[in-house]
Amino acid sequence: MLIVMKNDATEGQVQAVIREIQKMGYRGVPMPGAIRTAVCIIGNKGPVDATQLLSLEGVREAIPVTKPYKLVSRETHPESSVISVGDVKIGGGEPVIIAGPCAVESEEQALTIATLVKEHGARVFRGGAFKPRTSPYSFQGLGEKGLKILQKVRRETGLLIATEAIDSESLSLVAGYADIVQIGARNMQNYSLLRLAGQLNKPVLLKRGLAATIDEWLMAAEYIMSEGNTRVILCERGIRTFSDNTRNTLDLSAIPSIREASHLPIIVDPSHAAGRRDYVIPLSRGAIAVGADGLLIEVHHDPAHALSDGMQSLYPQQFAELMDEIGRLKQFL
Amino acid sequence: MLIVMKNDATEGQVQAVIREIQKMGYRGVPMPGAIRTAVCIIGNKGPVDATQLLSLEGVREAIPVTKPYKLVSRETHPESSVISVGDVKIGGGEPVIIAGPCAVESEEQALTIATLVKEHGARVFRGGAFKPRTSPYSFQGLGEKGLKILQKVRRETGLLIATEAIDSESLSLVAGYADIVQIGARNMQNYSLLRLAGQLNKPVLLKRGLAATIDEWLMAAEYIMSEGNTRVILCERGIRTFSDNTRNTLDLSAIPSIREASHLPIIVDPSHAAGRRDYVIPLSRGAIAVGADGLLIEVHHDPAHALSDGMQSLYPQQFAELMDEIGRLKQFL
Amino acid sequence: MLIVMKNDATEGQVQAVIREIQKMGYRGVPMPGAIRTAVCIIGNKGPVDATQLLSLEGVREAIPVTKPYKLVSRETHPESSVISVGDVKIGGGEPVIIAGPCAVESEEQALTIATLVKEHGARVFRGGAFKPRTSPYSFQGLGEKGLKILQKVRRETGLLIATEAIDSESLSLVAGYADIVQIGARNMQNYSLLRLAGQLNKPVLLKRGLAATIDEWLMAAEYIMSEGNTRVILCERGIRTFSDNTRNTLDLSAIPSIREASHLPIIVDPSHAAGRRDYVIPLSRGAIAVGADGLLIEVHHDPAHALSDGMQSLYPQQFAELMDEIGRLKQFL
Amino acid sequence: MLIVMKNDATEGQVQAVIREIQKMGYRGVPMPGAIRTAVCIIGNKGPVDATQLLSLEGVREAIPVTKPYKLVSRETHPESSVISVGDVKIGGGEPVIIAGPCAVESEEQALTIATLVKEHGARVFRGGAFKPRTSPYSFQGLGEKGLKILQKVRRETGLLIATEAIDSESLSLVAGYADIVQIGARNMQNYSLLRLAGQLNKPVLLKRGLAATIDEWLMAAEYIMSEGNTRVILCERGIRTFSDNTRNTLDLSAIPSIREASHLPIIVDPSHAAGRRDYVIPLSRGAIAVGADGLLIEVHHDPAHALSDGMQSLYPQQFAELMDEIGRLKQFL
Repeated sequence: MLIVMKNDATEGQVQAVIREIQKMGYRGVPMPGAIRTAVCIIGNKGPVDATQLLSLEGVREAIPVTKPYKLVSRETHPESSVISVGDVKIGGGEPVIIAGPCAVESEEQALTIATLVKEHGARVFRGGAFKPRTSPYSFQGLGEKGLKILQKVRRETGLLIATEAIDSESLSLVAGYADIVQIGARNMQNYSLLRLAGQLNKPVLLKRGLAATIDEWLMAAEYIMSEGNTRVILCERGIRTFSDNTRNTLDLSAIPSIREASHLPIIVDPSHAAGRRDYVIPLSRGAIAVGADGLLIEVHHDPAHALSDGMQSLYPQQFAELMDEIGRLKQFL
Repeated sequence: MLIVMKNDATEGQVQAVIREIQKMGYRGVPMPGAIRTAVCIIGNKGPVDATQLLSLEGVREAIPVTKPYKLVSRETHPESSVISVGDVKIGGGEPVIIAGPCAVESEEQALTIATLVKEHGARVFRGGAFKPRTSPYSFQGLGEKGLKILQKVRRETGLLIATEAIDSESLSLVAGYADIVQIGARNMQNYSLLRLAGQLNKPVLLKRGLAATIDEWLMAAEYIMSEGNTRVILCERGIRTFSDNTRNTLDLSAIPSIREASHLPIIVDPSHAAGRRDYVIPLSRGAIAVGADGLLIEVHHDPAHALSDGMQSLYPQQFAELMDEIGRLKQFL
Repeated sequence: MLIVMKNDATEGQVQAVIREIQKMGYRGVPMPGAIRTAVCIIGNKGPVDATQLLSLEGVREAIPVTKPYKLVSRETHPESSVISVGDVKIGGGEPVIIAGPCAVESEEQALTIATLVKEHGARVFRGGAFKPRTSPYSFQGLGEKGLKILQKVRRETGLLIATEAIDSESLSLVAGYADIVQIGARNMQNYSLLRLAGQLNKPVLLKRGLAATIDEWLMAAEYIMSEGNTRVILCERGIRTFSDNTRNTLDLSAIPSIREASHLPIIVDPSHAAGRRDYVIPLSRGAIAVGADGLLIEVHHDPAHALSDGMQSLYPQQFAELMDEIGRLKQFL
Repeated sequence: MLIVMKNDATEGQVQAVIREIQKMGYRGVPMPGAIRTAVCIIGNKGPVDATQLLSLEGVREAIPVTKPYKLVSRETHPESSVISVGDVKIGGGEPVIIAGPCAVESEEQALTIATLVKEHGARVFRGGAFKPRTSPYSFQGLGEKGLKILQKVRRETGLLIATEAIDSESLSLVAGYADIVQIGARNMQNYSLLRLAGQLNKPVLLKRGLAATIDEWLMAAEYIMSEGNTRVILCERGIRTFSDNTRNTLDLSAIPSIREASHLPIIVDPSHAAGRRDYVIPLSRGAIAVGADGLLIEVHHDPAHALSDGMQSLYPQQFAELMDEIGRLKQFL
């Protein structure tokens, strides 16, 4: 149930609605919009009788919400959300390019790649300090040392920083260094981690799980939003299918599906989906043309010697070509 | 094994190579290219000793072909094939739009829609006269009566005609009326039908099976080509996955995969993949931006009363919008 | 719509119902059961008004059939069907073992394997004379020569013969030699072939398509039954999934699903599903324990030299072990 | 690399090997077997030169391990592991039945169901106190209160307790109450949780992820074992596929695959795979016949009023029937 306030409703009227919802045994979460505020009722198991709420001052209408998710739903929030991070706006029409290596390997490596991606127009630098790896014997990332390198990258290049947290410990650390906190595909249903991410004052980049439906993905985003963090960016990165020409099957239909169901922005990671650098440029063009709000791209100055997943990292000249193509394609949009 | 002839090899020299291959117990299929001809050896189970062939006049080199397919392979035919149908060229750089209803319902319906799609720039009209239907109790198409209607559409509008054959009987009929013969996803591994299609003097539009890998799809095309028909157009139409936001999951990574492995053109059918008309425009933009050679689009002047699959047919105004967007997007490419 | 006749309805009364249905513009198919007959109405697109039919003599009731399939449905035919082939009954409680090589290679090979499988208790011999092969360059079977070998196997061993038809031509031939006509997974939605199989007076073994849902599979069976052939045996043979430990994922839950939805018997082919001979025995035990009516097993006297798919053929001693285990397991059931 | 000790090697010789491995910069983990001990080398990225190790006393041979997992591998530990929990042995030939409700709802509910499952022969009681739920608004379990109820169940019935941990906080709590700690499918690649579970002195029941290959599943088990906890029980619970007749597709071929690759026991959860109680008995029979070491079964005394997933919980009389069938089936094995 969504209680929509009148355009000129006061903050006091909104608070009165929230108090009344609490008296009914539920929780009221205010959702400020550009024109007016709505209050979402959370915690009800069945239908809610809104008669009492509708009689309060400043209340315009009560909208039953039929989808299992509420806060992420376009039904409750018809305007597309624009997530601001520093001076970058994700979802604001201009595709945002987040680029960098799979893993932070050293200060020199990170700065070399960051300088390169900045030069070609990327606004956000990505690089993992904590890596969720299939094998316990693989390189697991530099940890906090990697975060300090990322901090230096921001200081020296002015790029914003996106990096992954894989558990509660790394989340606390990452939140202290990153501008955008990434939750990876394998953790998409790690609900405890999602709740903690929901308590941060940082945007969260939530990757789609390998076997997640659109509804499950949005429910994961709902976990974050239900804790109060409204800055969630979704990221399609391929799903697991029988098809073996790519590592995962990039599902670009996720873009119109998310647009339809949710107000949250969605970006696309063609590097992890394809697992092959030669497919990254065409799939990036496709993602932008379908309507993605941005791209997450893996780049390395020396892929052959990358510590992880070098197979899918773009060479510098490929990244330059990608940025050039996206630049031209933007004029079409 | 591929026997590559010298640039100035004569037809007589090519024939001599073919005769020698026959003496070895195999079959030699000439593959003329823009610059030179190659002869593909078919029928060998293991490695072929090419010593004798290399000693013939006009022979430049012998290339072992490691992939399970030969004739469709880019290894054997490095230049991309351009399929000419009437004055339309598929694979020639300009995306070709094939549009029309799922099924031919009546002369009036077909002419109405054909006029509409032609007006907006489509070059080929599609419409099924033989429909492979999941249920034996569903409308199975008008049969030859439908083909005669398609003939009239061509006469009156000048559009080329693409329509589906579902078995040997309908194939004979369709071949007499259509400009492009379509083999549907469910028949992608109907090898007898593929062989018969390989004996036609008409281009064949071969849809990817719902559970077909890229290699299996190319092997199906190889069946057609091994009978002598070199004009095969591939069509990605979505694969079956767990994801339920669309009817099938459109796999746009098939485009770079086909480009890499084969010289054949590839078009995309977003209508059947999505199963929802609202996703057709964004997915069409994506397909063209990734590099598809064309689109297969379902349009109906009155989707609500379409005899089949109305849910995914574009409304006329949506088709106009699609053509407009593709027109603008082409300038970027 | 199903018109259920009274227990003592005469043949004349059944015919009168069929004639009345024809007058209504539909088709009536009689379905004799152990206790009473039902007449299934086919060809209606919407609801049928049964008032007139209910007034006929011998009619007990009219049952609307909500599932998209009718003749295969347990709703219309509550008792499980038992398919008799010679003196073998499939679906009669005793699991039937159909065994033999992937392909008939020679008379000697076929007779050697047939003698072997008979000795261990198999009742039906399988072996392909027409092979649907992914590659046009693979061994495609001996054709009619293979069928003649199978005829000799029957004459010399008394085993019944099951073999595959892949198109209308091979279907005519196979129908003249085989006791059970197999339609393979790749042809499960080759509707023309299904219709032709529906006109045979031979039981049809219909394999599940690699990407077929239970409903689509039953609809394929409905195609056969709607032409009048009621002797359809379903065969689960694995579906295509992301999981790569077996060639396909054997879906044993298909057994209770088919039992629930249909009266048709269901057997299991663990050889093609697993693609590895070492898994065939445990999966066979599982299939029988879940409730399969039989097994389709690949056996070869010399798998290392089999012309096709030797990897999954059981060695003779493995087949002996399998038959021994199934024999003991039957006592449990 | 695995250093296999002689049968009569002393503990001191084993320790000397471990010290030598440490000097080489790696880690040596002793793996005691029934006959002899092996030492597994962990932490190497490439091949290890074992010359020095082979010269030590008590060393029999060095075996290169090619699979990405080591400790879970049957290559390193040819005998099947038997996991002892109280007086129950999992993997010891006798199938172990773990049964109970999806969630602990109240003391009365838990005791009622526990009494029931014990009466019919279950040895372990299951019930969730922490529930990973797709929606943040669903019942998330009673938490520690639920664990105290489970403690009472053990005290009053003598049943062992299996219950799920979903994060580091619940893991600490669960470890204090449970006999077996369950890691759910959604957390199969929550590597931080796996590492913590590897530090417990409790057996861990590790469910297969919805989209996990056999190799990824074993790598997850390797995470647990690499921290020192050797008591890992694997649980197949269905994978995500296109097939919609069951909630997930139960992959019984996982049993022979795990047997081949690993020494760890494997049990099967047919309740979550099927999502429908009527399929649980046949699939349980199948799992045991294929060779599962046990079953995880959902039972409720009143499924219609279960707090979660009542649809798949067996009724008491169905559970009685299941136990009866498994009892008879065991005689076959």
